[in-house]
Amino acid sequence: MICKLKNIHRFDSNHFRINSLFAPGRFQKSILSTNSDICSPTRFSRRFLSSEANATIEPKTGRRRQIFLLSSSIIIGAVLFAVLDHKRTEAEVKKHEISNLTLEFKRGGPKQLPIASHFTDEKDFSIGKPRLVILGSGWGAVSLIKELEKDKYHVTVISPQNYFLFTPLLPSATVGTLEARSLLEPIRGIIKHICAHYLEARATDVCFDEKLVEVSTGPDGDSFYVPYDKLVIAVGSKSITHGIEGIEHCHFLKTINDARAIRKTIMDNIEKASLPTTSSEERKRLLSFVVCGGGPTGVEFAAELYDFLTEDVVKYQFPTVLRKEVQVSIIQGSDHILNTYDKKISDFAEKKFKRDNINVITNARVQKVKEDHIIYKKKNEDEERELKYGLCLWSTGIAMSSLTKKISEKLPEQKNMRALVTDNRLRLMGIPDSSVYAIGDCSTVKNPKLVENLMKFFTDADVDNSGALSYAEFQAMAKKISRKYPITADHLKKANILFATYDKNKSGTLELDELHAMLDDIDKRLTSLPATAQVAHQQGKYLAKKLNKLALERSTAIFPSSTDYSVDGAEKENPDMDDRLEPFNYAHLGSLAYIGNSAVADFGTGYTWTGGWSAVYLWRSIYFSEQVSLRTRVLLALDWTKGSIFGRDISKF
Amino acid sequence: MICKLKNIHRFDSNHFRINSLFAPGRFQKSILSTNSDICSPTRFSRRFLSSEANATIEPKTGRRRQIFLLSSSIIIGAVLFAVLDHKRTEAEVKKHEISNLTLEFKRGGPKQLPIASHFTDEKDFSIGKPRLVILGSGWGAVSLIKELEKDKYHVTVISPQNYFLFTPLLPSATVGTLEARSLLEPIRGIIKHICAHYLEARATDVCFDEKLVEVSTGPDGDSFYVPYDKLVIAVGSKSITHGIEGIEHCHFLKTINDARAIRKTIMDNIEKASLPTTSSEERKRLLSFVVCGGGPTGVEFAAELYDFLTEDVVKYQFPTVLRKEVQVSIIQGSDHILNTYDKKISDFAEKKFKRDNINVITNARVQKVKEDHIIYKKKNEDEERELKYGLCLWSTGIAMSSLTKKISEKLPEQKNMRALVTDNRLRLMGIPDSSVYAIGDCSTVKNPKLVENLMKFFTDADVDNSGALSYAEFQAMAKKISRKYPITADHLKKANILFATYDKNKSGTLELDELHAMLDDIDKRLTSLPATAQVAHQQGKYLAKKLNKLALERSTAIFPSSTDYSVDGAEKENPDMDDRLEPFNYAHLGSLAYIGNSAVADFGTGYTWTGGWSAVYLWRSIYFSEQVSLRTRVLLALDWTKGSIFGRDISKF
Repeated sequence: MICKLKNIHRFDSNHFRINSLFAPGRFQKSILSTNSDICSPTRFSRRFLSSEANATIEPKTGRRRQIFLLSSSIIIGAVLFAVLDHKRTEAEVKKHEISNLTLEFKRGGPKQLPIASHFTDEKDFSIGKPRLVILGSGWGAVSLIKELEKDKYHVTVISPQNYFLFTPLLPSATVGTLEARSLLEPIRGIIKHICAHYLEARATDVCFDEKLVEVSTGPDGDSFYVPYDKLVIAVGSKSITHGIEGIEHCHFLKTINDARAIRKTIMDNIEKASLPTTSSEERKRLLSFVVCGGGPTGVEFAAELYDFLTEDVVKYQFPTVLRKEVQVSIIQGSDHILNTYDKKISDFAEKKFKRDNINVITNARVQKVKEDHIIYKKKNEDEERELKYGLCLWSTGIAMSSLTKKISEKLPEQKNMRALVTDNRLRLMGIPDSSVYAIGDCSTVKNPKLVENLMKFFTDADVDNSGALSYAEFQAMAKKISRKYPITADHLKKANILFATYDKNKSGTLELDELHAMLDDIDKRLTSLPATAQVAHQQGKYLAKKLNKLALERSTAIFPSSTDYSVDGAEKENPDMDDRLEPFNYAHLGSLAYIGNSAVADFGTGYTWTGGWSAVYLWRSIYFSEQVSLRTRVLLALDWTKGSIFGRDISKF
Repeated sequence: MICKLKNIHRFDSNHFRINSLFAPGRFQKSILSTNSDICSPTRFSRRFLSSEANATIEPKTGRRRQIFLLSSSIIIGAVLFAVLDHKRTEAEVKKHEISNLTLEFKRGGPKQLPIASHFTDEKDFSIGKPRLVILGSGWGAVSLIKELEKDKYHVTVISPQNYFLFTPLLPSATVGTLEARSLLEPIRGIIKHICAHYLEARATDVCFDEKLVEVSTGPDGDSFYVPYDKLVIAVGSKSITHGIEGIEHCHFLKTINDARAIRKTIMDNIEKASLPTTSSEERKRLLSFVVCGGGPTGVEFAAELYDFLTEDVVKYQFPTVLRKEVQVSIIQGSDHILNTYDKKISDFAEKKFKRDNINVITNARVQKVKEDHIIYKKKNEDEERELKYGLCLWSTGIAMSSLTKKISEKLPEQKNMRALVTDNRLRLMGIPDSSVYAIGDCSTVKNPKLVENLMKFFTDADVDNSGALSYAEFQAMAKKISRKYPITADHLKKANILFATYDKNKSGTLELDELHAMLDDIDKRLTSLPATAQVAHQQGKYLAKKLNKLALERSTAIFPSSTDYSVDGAEKENPDMDDRLEPFNYAHLGSLAYIGNSAVADFGTGYTWTGGWSAVYLWRSIYFSEQVSLRTRVLLALDWTKGSIFGRDISKF
């Protein structure tokens, strides 16, 4: 019963044998016999070295070898690990203690709902820890959770999705380049290190006076309150619709179910187009895919879709006429697609799409969406144009979710129509006691109005009371402002140029009116942070570090240790403590987009990268290293490998 | 830009370098740095050899190593293959010629619908080939397609599912042991070798007189006819409901969407049970899973569910009380679960389930299904019992689909209420010209009534006209009958014992009345073939071989070569040609079932295998080798590996 793993010897100088580890099944035999010629070192290296040359060899043989090589490595792995598996899990099961608490909740809050002051399973709840409630399970929430330290807070995460979704790769899931499940990471796994609680529910309202989050478990489910001492709102956004008529005919691409619905529709259309009784006109409509919005999501979807239709669909037994009639269009409001990226990148993407026959319509605004066509107008044109579609993706921007809207309406300090406004310490404006933070897409950091502080800046900086700022005085002021408002740092960086530009009368000093003009100009140039995963990620990280510090300060000095933190016990924290910590500072690391067997990268510092497969690997490697867990990293690598060997799956599921 | 793949050197005696193959990204660096200690041959072998010992090492470290080892092999593979990929596909795209045919169909048939006499893309259609239409994309249809030879028929496959589903592993997909997509194989890939056409549509009726299949493309889609010369019905079955009231509250497990719905409900229930406001009683209900039917599907589902709840759910941050309150029950009508298997196997499974606290209720019949509980009665008891459930799976057997029922009602020869009846050459009873076959779950092979042919058998066998059969004469007769009706072979095998048993008057010969008694007894013992994947698979294979032979005979001799095979041109084949070929003979290869970290196998010949992990590997290896394509084989191996390392995914998607 000696397993035939002889071929492995060649990998390894220490010869070894494996005795009776496995049952003697066809499994091992069949696998190992097929591998024999691949495992040979000469072939292995030859294959590796000649990969360029191999691209031109007879496809069938090449593919077989690829498959064998992959399956051999996979299956050896499978056999190795599975043997070790079950004992470990059995041990883990036994480790668990079981406790049971009866549940009785008092009612309270504005709606007299039950207040969930304790949880079913409170083995890890110690009185004395402040309650931190996190709403959401996206980028902001997860990067916050991952950085939070253990035992600092009694953490509760509330989200209707019990998983984190790796949104930047969502376009890849619409055509099966990646499996939807590879982009998911269960939130209950992420919260494990801080022994947090998770509630699969939707936060529907917040009562800031009594520090209660109103939570609903579904359309016909219960509602109840969850008390908090610190609240983090990270609920994200929904797609903006601009009030367009007929928007319900469009697909969106925000959730994993959106991706699934798109995948199903694409396959539906292709199958319908293949039926003999489908008319030519209808077939063309079914194969016409329209993307409204030329941002990264829209562009990546178009690229992935094009790849799928031209690379994978042709491999199967479909009527060839389909290939000819497929049409992908992008409708973009401004001059260029990817217009938030560097100009070079937009150009590259547009050229690539032109080569691929992807129809890019710029300067166009959608007027209406009908069941089978959209109506749009080009800028400076009165004529309405029509574009038939079989699938229309709407991805033009973001809008407030219902919770965000409700909170915004409740607080007079909240006047922004797109998002909740926070100060530069990410505290929700309008909540005086630093108990509520907002991060990610649902929030925007309020830009400072430097001009409003003109007099203060000037008198503080004018150390010698000369009535004008010398260059040294200006430099010191610029440094101070940069530290207080990190978003202005870029604009105050080149102090000498600034000084020279605004010293209009060439006096060698900056007078009050000259400083006024300068600060006014800077104010105008400040833009709000983009609603990207990167911003949310950094905000979550920043907030976690702050919360860790606050907990530490509280436990060592200011905060009494044995207070009752139930709903009645008010938060006794000094609201100014937060002020002493550094404000949030966003560091842009660059933007990436996949545009169909090529990728583009904009590193924000003026350095861009456009290119073919090298850029794709860069693109993949960056997302790869950003993955939340090792599990999703492995799944991602597997998906990419599967895709390159077997192509994307066309099963309509 | 030399990639840091030094570690690979150790696998290989020929040292080599790879220059500028990849972009220098974090990708390679991070991967290779994590692998450095694994790639070392000493560690590799040490790990491999000491796998027994390792099972007891500190779980965390062990797991990390497992993960590293897997990811290294995967990622090295990924990098290798992906580089070679894109050129190949580009070449394939260019290969395709594009043709476009205008579509005009004449109308006809009983409903005057369009007759799809040609397809959108007819590059591979040559006049002169008979039209073979296959309804379905399950086991029967696929094994038929895979064995069909090229250019023999103009093949059209019609099925509402554009994929083949590997049904025996479906219970594993309900809890994420396997990903649903790993069980699917696109039908358009399977039909490629015979250049067949596929229509994603549902056959709703058959007009046997005009040889037209009526096809509908959806609830509000078109209907049209597809003409055939040979028709194979392989549409499968649906779940039998026994007319139980409230059956709509139950889940079924026949399709991939069923598996998905079950997976979602399980996670829904667990999440709801974790909410603080859920009452104790409600929590117990939500965690109570009831399986109606103790056949392989029900048993495997119960086992998989139990594994998931006890192995994976505990790994995440769930209230521990859940673990205690989970209850899985199986309700079975007869004395034992798995009652079609060997008794030893039933016993083993029952003991295993008892150890696991899976509640097996035998001799019980479900009376009603209510929204949150079922009502059942035990045999010989009047009292109705109640069992609350959070999820109820109904898997008690199969019933006719709507098409099968329609066909059955149309033909007076079809009297069976469960399935279409065929002769032992799989021809549909009631169709005289051998133009329609039925295979798989939707059909049953009619058992011969030997008694009806008593006189013929007797006179044929009584060569010496003695009025009684000598042992030699009886032996010859038994052989003949066995060949003609393979299903009787088992019963006629031991001729000497039979002869002795029925030679009641010990005359040394068999008289007419003695033979009558024997044949009557054999008739009574004949059972119909089970509705299993194995039977469907063998039937498909048998039918393909026959169709290949028929096509050959037709083209060489009997069949005129230039006939018009359109709808008007009648099938001119000699209906008796089929009779000269061998009848279908089912060879039972054994049955398998997975019962939770153990598996059972019944090889049909009295040899059984029950056991722990060795049997699980046997179980996996057999299914593994049965997989339709290399793609699903690799995916399956990957899933099993992923599962053993990361556990099952709990994301509710």
